[in-house]
Amino acid sequence: MRYILASNSPRRRELLKKVIPEFEIIPAVGEEKTGSSSPAEIVEELSFQKASEIFHKILTDTDDNFVVIGADTVVSYNHRVLGKPVDETHAHQMLRMLSGQTHKVYTGVTIFIMADKKSEHFTFSECTDVYVSELSEGEIADYIKSGECMDKAGAYGIQGEFSRFITGIDGDYFNVVGLPVSRLYRELKARDII
Amino acid sequence: MRYILASNSPRRRELLKKVIPEFEIIPAVGEEKTGSSSPAEIVEELSFQKASEIFHKILTDTDDNFVVIGADTVVSYNHRVLGKPVDETHAHQMLRMLSGQTHKVYTGVTIFIMADKKSEHFTFSECTDVYVSELSEGEIADYIKSGECMDKAGAYGIQGEFSRFITGIDGDYFNVVGLPVSRLYRELKARDII
Repeated sequence: MRYILASNSPRRRELLKKVIPEFEIIPAVGEEKTGSSSPAEIVEELSFQKASEIFHKILTDTDDNFVVIGADTVVSYNHRVLGKPVDETHAHQMLRMLSGQTHKVYTGVTIFIMADKKSEHFTFSECTDVYVSELSEGEIADYIKSGECMDKAGAYGIQGEFSRFITGIDGDYFNVVGLPVSRLYRELKARDII
Repeated sequence: MRYILASNSPRRRELLKKVIPEFEIIPAVGEEKTGSSSPAEIVEELSFQKASEIFHKILTDTDDNFVVIGADTVVSYNHRVLGKPVDETHAHQMLRMLSGQTHKVYTGVTIFIMADKKSEHFTFSECTDVYVSELSEGEIADYIKSGECMDKAGAYGIQGEFSRFITGIDGDYFNVVGLPVSRLYRELKARDII
């Protein structure tokens, strides 16, 4: 089977390898839009748009079987949904908001499948609670200087230097990094796609 | 300050970098022994023995200030403590035991400090709950074939291929990998060691 990841994120690429050893990368380029305000709905909708774009692009080129995987991640705290920061001031605001609090990370995944000229798709999302210790202004400033925060929802990466500020999580760790590895494995396995 | 990690584990080395950018590695070689049966006591005792061995070895060579960090990890399930498997059959037994269940991972850490000719040490441990999905005999056999399990407590590595079977955790993810990064950062920071 031909597998395609519709994302350019190096983190998602590493995580998908834990489930599917070999796949292609064709990042979605369209601007995703959502009218939803619930974080689970937002990530499900955006993952659908990414996977759908690449699925329909490939469909015009081939009669073979293939699977497209799209994913999207947001941070949710106190009824606010945080995507990637637009600049360092924005990153600073986000990190100050998350300091000493518990927030939720949602990743939505959509799978499009073309098998024997029949297509189908399904979507799911996972939520993980994340506990952040109290951050001093100096710690926030140092972390922003590290350059890790700019391309990440909520302005932090759990797998990098920010790990020293994560006192614990409840749920799938890899869901916070950007792909719910265990759920994805079970969903694909249940449908005999891997 | 001179920092020394008393462990040869490549995973602990990677994790310690998240807290201390530069340190030496001098692995403890003595055989650790414990008379304890509580997992928290076991990992605290064994981490103490590792750090103590290296602390006293360095003490004979230097009058400088230095810090030694020792750590030990075990898996605990249903009143049994699991270390590293002795062979593949043992690994198979361990994984079959953990299948479809929640187990606990304990990591103990001991820090020895020599500062201005005064020495002190302290020890702590962290516990993380880990949820494992139902594993088929085929999944266990394939995982053992991957070669990942032999040098790891409980016969699995959460960060590798086994991640597809971890449906979630409650606590610090890095504690399961082998070092409670956030707790270690806070304990060192509180004592002005970093």
